[in-house]
Amino acid sequence: MSEWINVAVDAMGGDNAPAEVVKGAVEAVMESRKIKVFLVGREDAVKAEFAKYTVPEGQIEVVPASEVIETAEPPVAAIRAKKDSSIVKGMKLVKEGSCDAFVSAGSTGAVLVGGQVLVGRIKGVERPPLAPVIPTVNGVALLIDCGANVDARPSHLVQFAKMGSIYMEHIMGVKQPRVGIVNIGAEEEKGNALVKETFPLLKECRDLNFIGSVEARDIPLGAADVIVCEAFVGNVILKMYEGVGGALIQEVKKGMMSTLRSKIGALLVKPALKETLKAFDLEQYGGAPLLGLHGLVVKTHGSSRSVEIKNSILQCIAFKEQKINDKIREQIVPKEEA
Amino acid sequence: MSEWINVAVDAMGGDNAPAEVVKGAVEAVMESRKIKVFLVGREDAVKAEFAKYTVPEGQIEVVPASEVIETAEPPVAAIRAKKDSSIVKGMKLVKEGSCDAFVSAGSTGAVLVGGQVLVGRIKGVERPPLAPVIPTVNGVALLIDCGANVDARPSHLVQFAKMGSIYMEHIMGVKQPRVGIVNIGAEEEKGNALVKETFPLLKECRDLNFIGSVEARDIPLGAADVIVCEAFVGNVILKMYEGVGGALIQEVKKGMMSTLRSKIGALLVKPALKETLKAFDLEQYGGAPLLGLHGLVVKTHGSSRSVEIKNSILQCIAFKEQKINDKIREQIVPKEEA
Repeated sequence: MSEWINVAVDAMGGDNAPAEVVKGAVEAVMESRKIKVFLVGREDAVKAEFAKYTVPEGQIEVVPASEVIETAEPPVAAIRAKKDSSIVKGMKLVKEGSCDAFVSAGSTGAVLVGGQVLVGRIKGVERPPLAPVIPTVNGVALLIDCGANVDARPSHLVQFAKMGSIYMEHIMGVKQPRVGIVNIGAEEEKGNALVKETFPLLKECRDLNFIGSVEARDIPLGAADVIVCEAFVGNVILKMYEGVGGALIQEVKKGMMSTLRSKIGALLVKPALKETLKAFDLEQYGGAPLLGLHGLVVKTHGSSRSVEIKNSILQCIAFKEQKINDKIREQIVPKEEA
Repeated sequence: MSEWINVAVDAMGGDNAPAEVVKGAVEAVMESRKIKVFLVGREDAVKAEFAKYTVPEGQIEVVPASEVIETAEPPVAAIRAKKDSSIVKGMKLVKEGSCDAFVSAGSTGAVLVGGQVLVGRIKGVERPPLAPVIPTVNGVALLIDCGANVDARPSHLVQFAKMGSIYMEHIMGVKQPRVGIVNIGAEEEKGNALVKETFPLLKECRDLNFIGSVEARDIPLGAADVIVCEAFVGNVILKMYEGVGGALIQEVKKGMMSTLRSKIGALLVKPALKETLKAFDLEQYGGAPLLGLHGLVVKTHGSSRSVEIKNSILQCIAFKEQKINDKIREQIVPKEEA
């Protein structure tokens, strides 16, 4: 049994739980024989969904949890009060070593707090960043941190850069990933106090391929592989992707429907356009890892459908096989302590 | 002569100076008899361009300035050293009261520094914000501050909200503009230290229609009329508009050219699409005002063509006629000092 990669999944998290979560878990074990999924949630509801599928013996197990943490609940209080919730129980499976990873489409706040409090940080990691993969015109980039640690300090950003670099190299297969810091100009002397302090520290890191400042304008154009920023800024970047993308696609559709001529054109253009725009849909990329913890925690969109749940679960294979946490430990922990 | 609205224009600023700047100035005076333009720059170069046009007597004057501040120059040093530059001379015309406004497509840094140092702040205004108008699916919004004052304090953001509200109401004609603060969640307790401190201060402002937090995702959807944020965040928002917009349009074009069927469709769709996407082109909206100064300073894109220069110049009419600076003075200066 210990040869499995064990993934706990929050069966109650997200807008489409438990149906889409269970479906995603089933799809994941059908795709990989390496994975065992622990569906954590209300036993009757989860089992009712699970009964719809036939899966290989022993690859999915239901772990009962009677409570659910809602998105609107204050995270710290919810984590403390709801000991029998799917998030708390799922994270404890990782903490105690029964599982290697935990995947949730539930409350972002509860996942972030739980990751720190219940799963716990790797020794030496000051703050665990949330790091989604975002699309660019020529592939993808890692945005680190996109919402876990507002008002971060320079030393945090340096750790984000290192963890992000390891992730992009060993999970996404980018050799010597280009690390850039989000700035409001290209020059070293530009920026706010945080960026000005962080810039020289990143320059000193011999183990990083630091390429300097990246302006937000150039992120979608693929200017860097690892986009380092403070969480508030990262959250704004992520949400502008969604917002501008959504608004523009809405306008494109409106434009196409505005005349008879354009309506005919739209019919012809549609299939090709759909294919291209899919690459720019953030939800295609599975969940965002919360890095620097004992084990892996993956946060997927609240609106996740089965494909995103499946991709988030499968992500855990490479994370375990590539020994990402050992690599983080080696690079993050100061040499004298190691 | 004093009945004119006098606008100094940096004839040497931007990638297309002096040709497009002079053209824009000519177009502005052809459109409005209220305006007199002072083209500040190298006399021979400006006059050579100007000679191409016939304009009403006395509406354009050339003011010689032998130096040019380049975009790459450190702003503070450049403002000090180049006393005979178009930016320094143009701003001094505003300072001494000969002109009501100054428009430049030149170095952003020099315009921001010059605005504070040469033109000077209205008494009581702590920091002058740069506030571009940005497109939304149902109109426009004002982004304040988008790059003038990094690491701002809560009191600055409150002033930005007030100045932005006055601008949107009296220049853009939006009744009781909805003021939102950029945040990483909708709830009052969310955010970084700056936002958490600013939120209750904005709530207390009876003269503002404060609607609370706005997530970046909802900005392009028109969630607020005045988008209040610190300059680093504002800069990221503005540049994500350009970056995601540019990347998506590039992908849409690529998608349309990918099959024969879609190529035919593209021909039919193109005219209608061009019209819709124009509304999402930031350069359509003229320059960004730097608010809170004695007089008006407008910064337009470095890549400005004549239409943007013209719109930036014409913006100065409403600014003067609506007595925006008197309104700012009334609302910003604490009652006991007034």
